[in-house]
Amino acid sequence: MRTITLCLIGFGNVGRAFARLLLRKEKTLAQEFDLHILVTGILTARHGRAIDSGGINLTRALEMAEDGLPLTALSADPEAPDGPAFVYACPAQVLLENTPVNHNTGHPAIAYLRAGLEKGMHAITANKGAVVFGYSQLRALAEERGRRFLFESAVMDGAPIFSLFRGPLPAIELRGFHGILNSCTNLLLEQMENGRSYAEAIAYAQSIGITETDPSADVDGWDAAIKVAALSTVLFGIPLTPQQVERQGIRELTAEQLREAHQAGKRWKLVCSAERRGGQLLHARVAPQCIGPESPLFSVQGTSSFVQFHSDVLPGLGILESNPGPETTAYGLLADLLNALRGA
Amino acid sequence: MRTITLCLIGFGNVGRAFARLLLRKEKTLAQEFDLHILVTGILTARHGRAIDSGGINLTRALEMAEDGLPLTALSADPEAPDGPAFVYACPAQVLLENTPVNHNTGHPAIAYLRAGLEKGMHAITANKGAVVFGYSQLRALAEERGRRFLFESAVMDGAPIFSLFRGPLPAIELRGFHGILNSCTNLLLEQMENGRSYAEAIAYAQSIGITETDPSADVDGWDAAIKVAALSTVLFGIPLTPQQVERQGIRELTAEQLREAHQAGKRWKLVCSAERRGGQLLHARVAPQCIGPESPLFSVQGTSSFVQFHSDVLPGLGILESNPGPETTAYGLLADLLNALRGA
Repeated sequence: MRTITLCLIGFGNVGRAFARLLLRKEKTLAQEFDLHILVTGILTARHGRAIDSGGINLTRALEMAEDGLPLTALSADPEAPDGPAFVYACPAQVLLENTPVNHNTGHPAIAYLRAGLEKGMHAITANKGAVVFGYSQLRALAEERGRRFLFESAVMDGAPIFSLFRGPLPAIELRGFHGILNSCTNLLLEQMENGRSYAEAIAYAQSIGITETDPSADVDGWDAAIKVAALSTVLFGIPLTPQQVERQGIRELTAEQLREAHQAGKRWKLVCSAERRGGQLLHARVAPQCIGPESPLFSVQGTSSFVQFHSDVLPGLGILESNPGPETTAYGLLADLLNALRGA
Repeated sequence: MRTITLCLIGFGNVGRAFARLLLRKEKTLAQEFDLHILVTGILTARHGRAIDSGGINLTRALEMAEDGLPLTALSADPEAPDGPAFVYACPAQVLLENTPVNHNTGHPAIAYLRAGLEKGMHAITANKGAVVFGYSQLRALAEERGRRFLFESAVMDGAPIFSLFRGPLPAIELRGFHGILNSCTNLLLEQMENGRSYAEAIAYAQSIGITETDPSADVDGWDAAIKVAALSTVLFGIPLTPQQVERQGIRELTAEQLREAHQAGKRWKLVCSAERRGGQLLHARVAPQCIGPESPLFSVQGTSSFVQFHSDVLPGLGILESNPGPETTAYGLLADLLNALRGA
C-alpha cells in the first residue's frame, strides 16, 4: 500500500467535510486505489495549527475544531510557523488549500499554492480566486516541477467541469457556455418568488450558511463573475478577471417583476454566459434573465446549479448539480487528489 | 507524427459522419495529438468493401457511398472477404464497429469486435447490443490483449457518460440513475402533445430519420431498456439484459391523458430508472411518467436526452444532451479513439 501525505490549509466547513470524507472513504481508497492517506499538517485561521510527520488523528482534529479547541495540542512541533512558511515546514506530498476567496487578487491562496508547488507537492484548491488570478503562473510552476495544479471544486463544487475537458472530451472546440453558477442568488430569487421580501430572503440564506454577513459578493454578481472568469481562463484559454465580466446583479429586480414572472409561469435567474470565436472573447456576462419552463435553467432551483456548453461537436452538453453541500465540494477535492496521483 | 490505422465496419449515417469528422479534424489531430489517422478498411452492408494498407481516400469513399456506388473500386484487394474475416484481412490498429443494433444477442457486432481484439486492435463501437450482451467477454479479451474496448456512443450519443465514471469521478459510489434515454418516444410524445395523432407523429419521426419503418423498438421501450441494461452492466457492474428490465412503452398512453397533462402544464415522458444497493439491483425500469416543470426532465424536448446519477458524494449529477445528430455519435467514437490511444 502506498502512503500519501497531505497538508490541509483551511479547516472550515469544506476542510472539515473533506476530512470526514477521507475517514469515510478510507476502506475504498485502500481497496480500490491501494492508497493510505496521512494528513501531516492542518493550518486553521482561528484554531491554531498542527504538524506531525507521523500523521494527525483526523477524528480527534475534527472533534477539537468543532469544540473550538486549538489544534496546537495535536502538533509534534509546537512552533509550527504560520502562513506559507507552514507549507515549507510540513512534510507532505499534496497540498489542499481552502482559504476564503479573494475576488481581487486571489491571495493568500496563491501564496500557499506556490509554496506547495515549489516544495514539490501537488497543489489542489477549491478557490476560484487562485484560479482566476494565479492560473498561468501556478500551471507553469506545476509543469516545471512535474506536479499538478487542480481545482475542480472552484466552479460547481464537485461536479466534474474542468476534468471533463481535461479527459473525456478530447479534440472538442468549446465555443461558449451559459448557466446558473451562483447558488445564493438562485435561492434568493426562489424565496422572493414565493413572496418573501429581499431582507427576509437574505436572512434565510444566511441562516442556512449560503451567503456571508455581507451578501454583496453574491447579490452583486461577483461570485458568478469570478466563475465566468475561471471558466474563460481555463476552458477557453482566455485570461479574464471578474472585473472584466459585464456584471449586473439582482438588486434592481423588483418584487413587481418577480410577481409578474411568477404569474406568467416564468422565473428570474441570474444567468452567466460567455462566447468566443477562436482566441477572441465575444462576450462574458452575468445578468438576470426571465426564464420560461422550456429552458433547462427553469427547473434549477434552490442551491442547484447548471451549465450548458456549446461546442463544434456536441450541440448542447449540460451539467446539472442538484442540492450540493460542503461534502460535494469535498468530493471535488478528493477527485482532484486521486486524479493528481494517477496523472489524469 | 504517429500514424494510426483504422478499420471501419459499417458506413451508414454514423460511419459516414465519423469519416467527415475525421476529415474536418485532420489539422487538430495533427497539431494537438501529433496524430495522422489512416483508414485502411471500410466494410459496408450494401456498398461493398475496400481494404488498402496505404489508406483509403475518405473523401472519395464518402462521395461513392452517397452516390450508391460500391466501394470495391477503392480496394487494393478486390477479393477482400466479408464478415468478421474482413477484420482479419484488414491491416489496422483500431476497429470502429457500427453495424445495426441487435436487441436479443448483440450479434454480429460482438463477432466483429472479438475479431478486432483478437487481432490486437482497440475495439470501439456505438452498438448498445454489443455492450449489453458482450461486455464481460469483450472487456476480458481487451485486458488480455492489452487493448481497449470502448463504447461511449452506445448511450446518449457523444455525451460523456461512460468516460465520466472511468475518469473524472473516482471513488464514487453510484447508487442509481433516472432520465430520458430514448429520443424517438420523446419526440413522439411532444408531437402528440401538440395535437398530432400517434400515426402522424410516427410518420414525422420516420421522415426525419429518428425511427425505423417498424417503430416498435422505440415505442415499446426496447431501445430505452437496452440503454438501462447497458448502464447497469457497465456502471453498476450488474449484468442485465433488456429482457430483464421492467418495460412499459408509450402505446397505451391515450390522447386524453396527453391532453389532460398538457392542460395541467405537465408532460408525459418515457422515464428510465434503476437503483441498486451494493451488488444488488433494487429495480430497473422503463415506464411513462407525467412530469411537471419542476423536474429537469420537463424541458428535455425533441430528440434531446438527460440522465441524472445518484451517488454517495454528488447528490444529483445530471447530464443533458441537446439536439444530437449523427455527428454527435461520431464525436463519441472519435473521443473513444483518442482515449484508447492515450490509455484514458
